[in-house]
Amino acid sequence: MTQQLPPEVLNLIDAALTEDQVFNDPTTQTLVPDAIVGSGMLRAKADGVLAGGPVAAAVFRRIDPSLDVALLLDDGAPLAPGQDIASVSGPAASILRAERTALNFMQRMSGIATATSHYVQAIAGTGARIVDTRKTAPGHRYLDKYSVRMGGGHNHRLNLADGILIKDNHIEARAWLEERLGDVVRRAISQASHTIRVEVEVESLEQVQEAVNAGAHIIMLDNMPVPLMQQAVNIIAGRASVEASGGITLQTVRAVAETGVNLISIGNLTHSPDALDISLDLEFPR
Amino acid sequence: MTQQLPPEVLNLIDAALTEDQVFNDPTTQTLVPDAIVGSGMLRAKADGVLAGGPVAAAVFRRIDPSLDVALLLDDGAPLAPGQDIASVSGPAASILRAERTALNFMQRMSGIATATSHYVQAIAGTGARIVDTRKTAPGHRYLDKYSVRMGGGHNHRLNLADGILIKDNHIEARAWLEERLGDVVRRAISQASHTIRVEVEVESLEQVQEAVNAGAHIIMLDNMPVPLMQQAVNIIAGRASVEASGGITLQTVRAVAETGVNLISIGNLTHSPDALDISLDLEFPR
Amino acid sequence: MTQQLPPEVLNLIDAALTEDQVFNDPTTQTLVPDAIVGSGMLRAKADGVLAGGPVAAAVFRRIDPSLDVALLLDDGAPLAPGQDIASVSGPAASILRAERTALNFMQRMSGIATATSHYVQAIAGTGARIVDTRKTAPGHRYLDKYSVRMGGGHNHRLNLADGILIKDNHIEARAWLEERLGDVVRRAISQASHTIRVEVEVESLEQVQEAVNAGAHIIMLDNMPVPLMQQAVNIIAGRASVEASGGITLQTVRAVAETGVNLISIGNLTHSPDALDISLDLEFPR
Amino acid sequence: MTQQLPPEVLNLIDAALTEDQVFNDPTTQTLVPDAIVGSGMLRAKADGVLAGGPVAAAVFRRIDPSLDVALLLDDGAPLAPGQDIASVSGPAASILRAERTALNFMQRMSGIATATSHYVQAIAGTGARIVDTRKTAPGHRYLDKYSVRMGGGHNHRLNLADGILIKDNHIEARAWLEERLGDVVRRAISQASHTIRVEVEVESLEQVQEAVNAGAHIIMLDNMPVPLMQQAVNIIAGRASVEASGGITLQTVRAVAETGVNLISIGNLTHSPDALDISLDLEFPR
Amino acid sequence: MTQQLPPEVLNLIDAALTEDQVFNDPTTQTLVPDAIVGSGMLRAKADGVLAGGPVAAAVFRRIDPSLDVALLLDDGAPLAPGQDIASVSGPAASILRAERTALNFMQRMSGIATATSHYVQAIAGTGARIVDTRKTAPGHRYLDKYSVRMGGGHNHRLNLADGILIKDNHIEARAWLEERLGDVVRRAISQASHTIRVEVEVESLEQVQEAVNAGAHIIMLDNMPVPLMQQAVNIIAGRASVEASGGITLQTVRAVAETGVNLISIGNLTHSPDALDISLDLEFPR
Amino acid sequence: MTQQLPPEVLNLIDAALTEDQVFNDPTTQTLVPDAIVGSGMLRAKADGVLAGGPVAAAVFRRIDPSLDVALLLDDGAPLAPGQDIASVSGPAASILRAERTALNFMQRMSGIATATSHYVQAIAGTGARIVDTRKTAPGHRYLDKYSVRMGGGHNHRLNLADGILIKDNHIEARAWLEERLGDVVRRAISQASHTIRVEVEVESLEQVQEAVNAGAHIIMLDNMPVPLMQQAVNIIAGRASVEASGGITLQTVRAVAETGVNLISIGNLTHSPDALDISLDLEFPR
Repeated sequence: MTQQLPPEVLNLIDAALTEDQVFNDPTTQTLVPDAIVGSGMLRAKADGVLAGGPVAAAVFRRIDPSLDVALLLDDGAPLAPGQDIASVSGPAASILRAERTALNFMQRMSGIATATSHYVQAIAGTGARIVDTRKTAPGHRYLDKYSVRMGGGHNHRLNLADGILIKDNHIEARAWLEERLGDVVRRAISQASHTIRVEVEVESLEQVQEAVNAGAHIIMLDNMPVPLMQQAVNIIAGRASVEASGGITLQTVRAVAETGVNLISIGNLTHSPDALDISLDLEFPR
Repeated sequence: MTQQLPPEVLNLIDAALTEDQVFNDPTTQTLVPDAIVGSGMLRAKADGVLAGGPVAAAVFRRIDPSLDVALLLDDGAPLAPGQDIASVSGPAASILRAERTALNFMQRMSGIATATSHYVQAIAGTGARIVDTRKTAPGHRYLDKYSVRMGGGHNHRLNLADGILIKDNHIEARAWLEERLGDVVRRAISQASHTIRVEVEVESLEQVQEAVNAGAHIIMLDNMPVPLMQQAVNIIAGRASVEASGGITLQTVRAVAETGVNLISIGNLTHSPDALDISLDLEFPR
Repeated sequence: MTQQLPPEVLNLIDAALTEDQVFNDPTTQTLVPDAIVGSGMLRAKADGVLAGGPVAAAVFRRIDPSLDVALLLDDGAPLAPGQDIASVSGPAASILRAERTALNFMQRMSGIATATSHYVQAIAGTGARIVDTRKTAPGHRYLDKYSVRMGGGHNHRLNLADGILIKDNHIEARAWLEERLGDVVRRAISQASHTIRVEVEVESLEQVQEAVNAGAHIIMLDNMPVPLMQQAVNIIAGRASVEASGGITLQTVRAVAETGVNLISIGNLTHSPDALDISLDLEFPR
Repeated sequence: MTQQLPPEVLNLIDAALTEDQVFNDPTTQTLVPDAIVGSGMLRAKADGVLAGGPVAAAVFRRIDPSLDVALLLDDGAPLAPGQDIASVSGPAASILRAERTALNFMQRMSGIATATSHYVQAIAGTGARIVDTRKTAPGHRYLDKYSVRMGGGHNHRLNLADGILIKDNHIEARAWLEERLGDVVRRAISQASHTIRVEVEVESLEQVQEAVNAGAHIIMLDNMPVPLMQQAVNIIAGRASVEASGGITLQTVRAVAETGVNLISIGNLTHSPDALDISLDLEFPR
Repeated sequence: MTQQLPPEVLNLIDAALTEDQVFNDPTTQTLVPDAIVGSGMLRAKADGVLAGGPVAAAVFRRIDPSLDVALLLDDGAPLAPGQDIASVSGPAASILRAERTALNFMQRMSGIATATSHYVQAIAGTGARIVDTRKTAPGHRYLDKYSVRMGGGHNHRLNLADGILIKDNHIEARAWLEERLGDVVRRAISQASHTIRVEVEVESLEQVQEAVNAGAHIIMLDNMPVPLMQQAVNIIAGRASVEASGGITLQTVRAVAETGVNLISIGNLTHSPDALDISLDLEFPR
Repeated sequence: MTQQLPPEVLNLIDAALTEDQVFNDPTTQTLVPDAIVGSGMLRAKADGVLAGGPVAAAVFRRIDPSLDVALLLDDGAPLAPGQDIASVSGPAASILRAERTALNFMQRMSGIATATSHYVQAIAGTGARIVDTRKTAPGHRYLDKYSVRMGGGHNHRLNLADGILIKDNHIEARAWLEERLGDVVRRAISQASHTIRVEVEVESLEQVQEAVNAGAHIIMLDNMPVPLMQQAVNIIAGRASVEASGGITLQTVRAVAETGVNLISIGNLTHSPDALDISLDLEFPR
């Protein structure tokens, strides 16, 4: 992430500040006069991978441009307990009002980056890529996908527009029109924009054969046991990219990768990430 | 949740539809003509508690008002694998374009409700309440807090405005002005709006004593071992509400509740919920 | 108000600039070339209390960041006719385009602060607080409530969320379920979030007795004559906070305060404030 | 006002609902189950003129489309104490959550319409028009100006774009370029868009003469005593429209009108209106 | 255009950046590391008139505030092939992501300014003005009308509010009420705001006579052949401004102007402008 | 286009209504009472292809939901002078206020569809596709691209995200790092998301050879004369898709298509479309 944030992220920051009523905080209004200056440090309390530094910085600056924020690590950097991430100094009341929102962004994003990095490490040395899904928190698509990249993963479709993915329901819709899988693939290839590829989800070796014969660019093996997946990879034999999908865990991912698939998609990365433990330590210098 | 959704949720739905480019979906544009009608069922694939029915319905209707959506269960209802949640019928292309966004909302919300219900069940029969925190996904405060209620929990502060919570950093800010904990509490009570209460976070029995003497309405025991917590409860002796906070898990929560605390706050509920497994099954009636 | 403004205020400023079409001003386009520099002073033309300095400054800067704006007084400062409030210098056309919008904010806000200060002065020495209501101009809640504080008043509920206030209609709704006032209060106390208090509106001494017995935290005496109010205060005897409400004027407020009530709410402050007279004097230095 | 509201008013309604947190109302959540149905009546408690019916209706419907709202009077109708304005029935909780916001709109708007009608009545039979100013509450320009029309007044410029108004500061800016008043007027007339007129503010009879000679379409007499105003009207002698402005009150307005001026602008109408007393009476039918 | 842009233009820039997904650009993400610095020049590739410099600059700065943008020409300046317009230097990836959006604004705006200038030149020396219409690209009203001014044209109504224009449909609506053209004009004049003028569209000399007798301020001759137009101008004889409208081209405009009309409106300027050819030349300095 | 419109189009409609001040229309306010009912017909005045029916309908309904709008033709239908497109009936004032905005959308969109259809017809029988570019009016990307499809064209990249397009500037940026064209293509292919293709812009036959050897999926021939283009097509020989781009006109497009290129991109379609002539004929039935 460059320092620049897209309009939708700036809008999300504003929504977050509004929903937390950071400008109506009776605790700091009552207890922390503007004259009290603080010096804060965002600090990791667990191992992981950082993501969200520039977003957290934007939160602090949005609440009070007089705050001095310095990012000590780039997104994508490894974190260990106690490690300094970013410093922020200025009016203590501003830091305290911003703290929770800044951490909510950074902890979720770093949680996603960290989970991704675990999968990436688990398949190190195989040729496969860990990719994400569209199972992101509503409004967080850009941030969730960015965090996956920071963790060493790659992005699957950003949204419905940048790829064709023919799923079981699409196949059944065409079957209702008495069209077979292979013809569905051919139709998609012939009609799609030239800039995007056609992927098709299959559940059996027969479908694999039909898809590869029809020229599918990418074949998604949905919820296949590893041995079956291996057979599918052998059948495809490099004529299409192969994506493994469905129920893959940190325990099973390496065996999946070793079948020779090109892509392994993990919904968990973005639909159920654990927030990474990060805290803001504040000091009041004399 | 009544059927009505707040403006910020409607805006979040629009942001979600925009970021997923649901109106630029080459897969359905290519393969699913408008004339194909589908009949879908949102169906639980795991045990849990439902939340997000009206939001998912709003997603479908926002994409295509001609869709016929019926909620078969109210939010808060228990779910078991295979259970029908909501039906949606109409143009299949519309259902398919909406599917992922509708599920992203409902799976996160039901995940929060489900996690909450586990904690609530774990302390059944004690007098304690499970409460949430402000550790929510940015932009999701309303939905996350609502989901906690659907799971049987209660809400802590919705935002910075509806309660005073004096944390360690506030205490240190006042200490810098040479004011003691008790005086900080007294200052807050005397200056705060009459409609909200004053809570203070303490870490030792001395602080407990000082807080209760100063008339704190609620005392938060931060990261205390259970035996110490028990002593604190005994000292407070009903003169203030007591909240246990910090690192409490499903394994430890009952022991915590049995100390007699009134409130147990669990950040996990909203910062790291696991999405509940829910799918959309689609049929093409003849 | 720190210099920082909440997103909703920045949005309101943009709405105000749009509705006044400040970037389509044929008068300055025709008559005031960019090269003409002006030096302006916002100046009080009446006695009162200042509020809105940072908002007015934001208006000028939003229209033209090259304007040099200096606030000479803090919000909350007393004003007298002829007193300088803020200086603004730079392209005269920019100052003229911003003038009306900046004044519209500052005059309303200072009008509220001034009205509040009159009530606050009228009860000086009694223990009562002047508080506002939710009768604010739509879209101005933050600014109106802030202005009340600048005038020396306190805020009642910022919105529906930060307090429970049981009014006659709520009581009647429960009466329809055959529940008595005392039970309504008890229900609210037992179910409400622990961070907020429960207030109940009463109209008779019987209701006062019932409310206080039920443990209401705050009792609002609605439209009671002063002698009756005095009896109510005596009955409550410190067991709850007492708020006087309804038809209280500058003439009657001291008598009300001397009954010993804790809070006196005045809808007038925000629903019918008189704009304070403030002007922009502009000079064209040679 | 037709039933249709401009986008900026719909946005203002959403802002009002958000700032009042109408979807986070613990009082109704705790006390008023969805099953309780109410029947409400918006009712005048004072004499005046109605404005804001469709806006209030939109507030109720925005919160709960299942509410049945019926406007019994058109905007512009005279009101007397006890008069029914609009009925609303449906879930009592929805009515109660909407009440304050709906009234905040209607009371301000009716207050403006009422104040306007007093001035209009005061000059009945003269040929003058009561007009408003740009001194409106930020974000309320459309509603404030509409309310003036409902009270029988006319609108001055809606914003900076729909007319040229040369004020003292513009004249001084040109004086700095050594241009006289008459030439300023001529410059504006020759350069302005053909669809709008040129008005000039004058303070002396000399300026009146110069303005009329230069062909000004409208001449604003700023803060002139009535006898001087009469002289100005005589000088202008129908060659331009004449507007009286500055410090005119209900007491003085008729004398002003009788000088023969065409327009009398009153800032008070929109910068300091008193809210009209209107209440919502709610019943719980059996 | 000063450097300042209205809120609606800033919103349009954000919409443009969002719709082009400039923060999700895999081409630059893959190929152009942040360390590569570029030096770009916006350069005309055709003759014309510049408009849109400040908007293009705002696009670059919005994407990356570290970019150094310098406008070498003011809007309204004549352009020739090869002429430098503005320089931008900094991270090459940022320049490349912004390029298309910046050019899309500037090319359309300069296209409008250029087309306008052709018409203005064609009637040079006559007393007529070239004016635009409300036939602008939705969302571009401000920019389109501004560009017309940069090309030497004048603006007709900015929107429906700043002038009364009685078209054939309005006349027929009143005819349905059995009111004649002259009476329609008189009604409009007597009821309209004093700041705006009344224009009426006529199609025959009879209507011209009726309109001028009724005191219409402006008379629009709709789709009249030049000789008929000349007769109309003679009839009006300076008693009203005269606007020629409908199907006027660069070939016919001078003849139209020489009839003595005051205003010639050209819908083409904004509904069908050709984009002016402008490119961004980028260099990578060593 | 289904009847459903994306959030960004609904926002654009609101922006268009706001900028035209359709709710502040003194002409209809003065002349067209609500009781007058009209019956309007949107009617083609030229040959072409329709696009924008549902958008125009949404404009009418947004201004007044009581209007009865019926689309008589689907988008994509051929138009001839006099052909009926859509009827709208209801309050005449509402129709008149909406007219210009509805037509502004439909005329631009139909203009794009019409221009596209001319190119599509010109190459009928060849295997080539007419595709658009990212040279769209800011804020109109969705509508412009949709209109191209209605005219029989195909879409190139919707935005920067759904394809990799390596242009001369990207190649030069890598050249600065001493990387050759072939390696740039290989880098992009190896790093890009698996769902999108890699296109590269070339200017010489050498570059063609290098690109095809490197495995580029699509090769864009930039501004090549037709004979050179033919050689390029022969060299590529089906190993990549071929796009012709730059300065292609209706006169030259068939010769280009007959070289065997797969795609012909035409910037004109969206950056300089002529509005199609469409009018609203209104009648006042008795």
